[in-house]
Amino acid sequence: MAARPGEFALIERYFRPLASDPAALALADDAAVYRPRAGEELVLTTDLVAAGVHFFPDDPPDLIARKALRVNLSDLAAKGAEAVGYLLALALPGDWTEPWIRRFTGGLAADQQRYGISLLGGDTSRACGGLTIAITALGRVPKGKAVHRSGAKPGDVVFVSGTIGDGALGLRVRSGALSPAVGAARYLRNRYLVPEPRVALAPVVRRFASSAMDVSDGLVGDLAHICDASNVAATVGSSRVPLSPAARAAVAADPALLSLVVNGGDDYEILATVPAKSAPAFVAAAAAAGVPVSAIGTIAKGHGPPVVLDESGRPLALATSSHVHF
Amino acid sequence: MAARPGEFALIERYFRPLASDPAALALADDAAVYRPRAGEELVLTTDLVAAGVHFFPDDPPDLIARKALRVNLSDLAAKGAEAVGYLLALALPGDWTEPWIRRFTGGLAADQQRYGISLLGGDTSRACGGLTIAITALGRVPKGKAVHRSGAKPGDVVFVSGTIGDGALGLRVRSGALSPAVGAARYLRNRYLVPEPRVALAPVVRRFASSAMDVSDGLVGDLAHICDASNVAATVGSSRVPLSPAARAAVAADPALLSLVVNGGDDYEILATVPAKSAPAFVAAAAAAGVPVSAIGTIAKGHGPPVVLDESGRPLALATSSHVHF
Repeated sequence: MAARPGEFALIERYFRPLASDPAALALADDAAVYRPRAGEELVLTTDLVAAGVHFFPDDPPDLIARKALRVNLSDLAAKGAEAVGYLLALALPGDWTEPWIRRFTGGLAADQQRYGISLLGGDTSRACGGLTIAITALGRVPKGKAVHRSGAKPGDVVFVSGTIGDGALGLRVRSGALSPAVGAARYLRNRYLVPEPRVALAPVVRRFASSAMDVSDGLVGDLAHICDASNVAATVGSSRVPLSPAARAAVAADPALLSLVVNGGDDYEILATVPAKSAPAFVAAAAAAGVPVSAIGTIAKGHGPPVVLDESGRPLALATSSHVHF
Repeated sequence: MAARPGEFALIERYFRPLASDPAALALADDAAVYRPRAGEELVLTTDLVAAGVHFFPDDPPDLIARKALRVNLSDLAAKGAEAVGYLLALALPGDWTEPWIRRFTGGLAADQQRYGISLLGGDTSRACGGLTIAITALGRVPKGKAVHRSGAKPGDVVFVSGTIGDGALGLRVRSGALSPAVGAARYLRNRYLVPEPRVALAPVVRRFASSAMDVSDGLVGDLAHICDASNVAATVGSSRVPLSPAARAAVAADPALLSLVVNGGDDYEILATVPAKSAPAFVAAAAAAGVPVSAIGTIAKGHGPPVVLDESGRPLALATSSHVHF
């Protein structure tokens, strides 16, 4: 086996080049020091992903890195925050190799450039099992402007960005449980491996949404979180849930997959409620930001899990338990 | 096996009570929102600990929790920062039990009260191996007042808080490789299991130190980091390194243990350099804060690893490689 760099050489060679923000102190200190701008609040979120739980150990290392980072950026965007940077705690299995690290950090570098962010700090350790990655992301938002889960009001329109279900279907493709046509398989698998955090939607969410969160545990389950936090009820039209052509074809071939689509999770789209009078302006601003959004339902008085209606307005009997990595 | 709570019940029952700071939004959202006070900077640090690497899987759960938290608080204190709170990413092995979680979160609760901090956010997941804990701590410091590794100047006095070597000796005791008298064994093991972050020293470090860091990888290796970052050299008098009575007895019985003491790590004491003219005031202020500090050496022009001198001023031949959890 080729000699591997020690911890300090590893940091020097692969992680220091990622620490472009002055707050990172070039990773030459014990901590990052971030100077807030006047009038801003900090938004902090953390997500841990582990081999065999959230990704396959043999997934491409650059894509593992990008997904671990992007699920955090998705949380920031849903709060209306602009991403600043992140801290990375990395537990490496005994058989890590330098080429693997090079590809992993290459994935981080590509996404840092794409999203205009920097590594701010980190910790590298031996894992007691498989690869484990904990990322804490830092974002900023004008004071008092963070968007919470708790602001939905009866009459608000429920919106979701992009398309729903691709991640859950892509996981099925990745694990061999679903075999669509080649093009659809590639599309779905890619959506599972590399979600697209809707960072461009953050200022639009901040301006118009009464509540928002990102869809990670499943559309229906996450809307239930908004209903819980806001003390409201919701209805969703199943035919209004936006599907990609690949997801649409999969559900047409096997209608039972609709439940997976709305409950499966791993979407990393933004779920937002918007007052009805602002809905057209929200749609226009989202389009101007390059992010498609779809109105999928309505907030109502009451409580309980969201009701999903079929095309004739009858409640669908869908399993409503959300996807929990646990 | 008794039924275990699901992820949401677990958060509700055990983690939400820890989220006392308004910034945590009662863990009912996707992120924490922290409002900086005027004139403050944020200090961020992350540390990951894993079963079998940093602790024994059968260590008491409350002590595992406290150590995971305290190693981060130690980093903040060494930068002169006051701790605000932390985010916790927790990967649980398949065999976790509710009583274990109760004791683990009980340890966090005790230390939150002790240090006046709050859980701000987190993520709970299944581990792909043993228990893995990644904590990101948030601290605050007046603008421009964070203490870095890079400020040591020739002529500065090298100080260290508390006593050195107890953690490394305690790990030997814990693993059965060292068997001192019962009282000493208990003391050393406890120092390994539950380090004491020197949070009371933070304002003193901020006021007087030209550079500082916490001793986690070993006194000599960490002083080498300060020398590297500051582009200076250092000498340390081995007889001036403060030892507890238990460590003193262990080294008296086996002089070879001196190398373990100064290189072993897991001390979580503060290593600081102070201009000679401020040294008496630094000692007095540290005493007033309730933290003993010892002058152990001097910063000089030059570069290279610190030189450790014996009582007659001759360089000791000690292994200088520091302890790396890797």
